[in-house]
Amino acid sequence: MEIQHTPFKPLVDRILKDGKCLEGGILKVDGFINQQIDPNLLKDMSIEIVKRFANYKINKILTIEASGIAPAIMLGFFLNAPVVFAKKKVPSTMENMLTTEVFSFTKQKSYSVCVSKDFLQKDDKILFVDDFLANGNAAKGIIDLVKIVGAELVGMAFLIEKGFQAGGNYLREQNIKVESLAIIDSLDNCEIKIRQ
Amino acid sequence: MEIQHTPFKPLVDRILKDGKCLEGGILKVDGFINQQIDPNLLKDMSIEIVKRFANYKINKILTIEASGIAPAIMLGFFLNAPVVFAKKKVPSTMENMLTTEVFSFTKQKSYSVCVSKDFLQKDDKILFVDDFLANGNAAKGIIDLVKIVGAELVGMAFLIEKGFQAGGNYLREQNIKVESLAIIDSLDNCEIKIRQ
Repeated sequence: MEIQHTPFKPLVDRILKDGKCLEGGILKVDGFINQQIDPNLLKDMSIEIVKRFANYKINKILTIEASGIAPAIMLGFFLNAPVVFAKKKVPSTMENMLTTEVFSFTKQKSYSVCVSKDFLQKDDKILFVDDFLANGNAAKGIIDLVKIVGAELVGMAFLIEKGFQAGGNYLREQNIKVESLAIIDSLDNCEIKIRQ
Repeated sequence: MEIQHTPFKPLVDRILKDGKCLEGGILKVDGFINQQIDPNLLKDMSIEIVKRFANYKINKILTIEASGIAPAIMLGFFLNAPVVFAKKKVPSTMENMLTTEVFSFTKQKSYSVCVSKDFLQKDDKILFVDDFLANGNAAKGIIDLVKIVGAELVGMAFLIEKGFQAGGNYLREQNIKVESLAIIDSLDNCEIKIRQ
């Protein structure tokens, strides 16, 4: 599938400099995205996402615990929009839950994606953000939840998309506006190839 | 134990307005801190923490996944400091782990608090931040980890402290600078009493 993609150079450069590729197609970006956050890069990436959705009305940022929280918080700050966390398991103390089941091909099992009804409304215009897009299982759960409440999913933003996995194509085929700041074309032989 | 405490009024007012108290001493602040984040309140709380540590040199923000991430990210942004996430279980893909065991009286079991050695250094001046301080188990794990690397724990900041639980006294007895923006004195009979 041919897609329009503009790589965000500061992130691409940083992945090539500090990213590590482990056996089995795992990309480690622990030093600046996952375990340790570089506040400047996070700011720059968030502002880039703001620009890419500049022509859209957004009143709420949605993400999934835990790795999407950092960019979501920064986006919420810049857009002055509440940030809502969906969860991958149903917590004991949450009432009014919206829940959907998602099947993970990677883990070969189903899991729940859920969010409180109190925090998603019919008239919401939602930007979803997460750190990684791979097979898009969590994203599918989010689409379901947004549909259930009848809100509008304005788009989905990802810091890093694994272009060799199915999620990106799936989401774009649903006519969802997907923006990824960097698309990894291959991690074969532990070499990081990023789309230009 | 007599402690110096300045309540942060915007948070106190918000807890009294929107906080909910459940049976068993559970305070729910889901609408503005835990499941949905109010970006303005988060900004104001983070700036308040910046002020309370204005006279200290800080080069790194440390928190524990997942509920501490939001204030940590905001603090990292304002202080231009990297944000490091400790975890409550040892992940499979993290090498060079620093690990310590913490006993949770609430859950009557031990758990691990861990962080990668790559992200904590001997010369770090660390501000730890989390959403809640109750029995302080996670905080004790953090103190251990910081000691192991020989870094300096500048202080610990919490949005909400449960003053009727043991964590706050324990930490202050270790001569740690503890700043809580709101201290809950009691949740008895499902009534929220906040220290003035």
